[in-house]
Amino acid sequence: MLPDRLLRVVQLLSKLPGVGEKTAQRYAIALLSADESVARELGRALAELHDNVRPCAECGNIADVREKGEAAICTICRDSRRDASLLCVVARVQDLFAIEKSGAMRGKYHVLGRLLSPLDGVGREQIGMDRLLERVTSNDVREVLVATPPSVDGEATALLISRELGAHGVQVSRIASGVPHGGDLEFADQITLGRAIEHRRRFSF
Amino acid sequence: MLPDRLLRVVQLLSKLPGVGEKTAQRYAIALLSADESVARELGRALAELHDNVRPCAECGNIADVREKGEAAICTICRDSRRDASLLCVVARVQDLFAIEKSGAMRGKYHVLGRLLSPLDGVGREQIGMDRLLERVTSNDVREVLVATPPSVDGEATALLISRELGAHGVQVSRIASGVPHGGDLEFADQITLGRAIEHRRRFSF
Repeated sequence: MLPDRLLRVVQLLSKLPGVGEKTAQRYAIALLSADESVARELGRALAELHDNVRPCAECGNIADVREKGEAAICTICRDSRRDASLLCVVARVQDLFAIEKSGAMRGKYHVLGRLLSPLDGVGREQIGMDRLLERVTSNDVREVLVATPPSVDGEATALLISRELGAHGVQVSRIASGVPHGGDLEFADQITLGRAIEHRRRFSF
Repeated sequence: MLPDRLLRVVQLLSKLPGVGEKTAQRYAIALLSADESVARELGRALAELHDNVRPCAECGNIADVREKGEAAICTICRDSRRDASLLCVVARVQDLFAIEKSGAMRGKYHVLGRLLSPLDGVGREQIGMDRLLERVTSNDVREVLVATPPSVDGEATALLISRELGAHGVQVSRIASGVPHGGDLEFADQITLGRAIEHRRRFSF
């Protein structure tokens, strides 16, 4: 019932994560009802998105392309005040953003892009283990903090990284897992509580 | 922390209804991670949206622009099998889609675009009362079914239309309001139940 070219917009919008046909239709109609300039500017920005923004050639974070055809390097990798001897390994760019917001990480990052998942055919090669190994050994990295999520795949990935880098004499650490800040013990799951107790820390005065 | 040109995409995406900064960021990163062609095609489609799709010059429904510069007429207005003597007045294009899906309307439509709302300065002029009046009287419309929502503004709009068109001898009807199909009486609100009883119908055999 929708005009063909609006239908095409709806189909493309429903490729966004968590967007079904109904929501996509709502977005399309909103863009149609709003001022022309919004759809036009968004359209142009999206059409050029992949020309303007690329993964950082160094760490995999998102980076502005400064000159066309040039490799993009992100602001974190370009920041010389960052501690280059501390490398934080994350699964996704979003995780990097979350850690940056916490302000607790003063080193650099390495984005894997995905987690080990042997059943889906994602092995050490697919997560770029050799690239990480090369980056760590050639850049004099002292400590690698593995900040993959505390899930089955995340733990497997962390284990692989700790083994391979450990064999090269690099110190590998893992983010703590336990009851979240402000969380209620009553509603924490068994595994989280088990970890919180297992990984308990001594008070130091 | 996001690159400038990605940030611009996030800002534009967060103008979509119900989309906050976090969701917009998720959409932008998804488009960046997906194949280039998705962002490019969506971008082009959006940039051209207002050139390709316009409100129907007749009823306000969404219509494909067939030839550039020409007034757009929607498929419903072009369909000669539709009963032109029955006109269904709706507030928004989405409402038209919902009614079309029900299959119960065999006439044509008139989209107001907005409801009467004197406090927001929306009066008879802003809802295009004269345009509706002219359309009804010059097209030999026998019955106007007002399908604005059963809200305060929707009822006020329906009342205005029934008065003005009634004064011109046009038969005006209103969609029924009551307990929805499959609805539970226990959970229906008082006004809905009150209406369902007040507007009760006789069984006819």
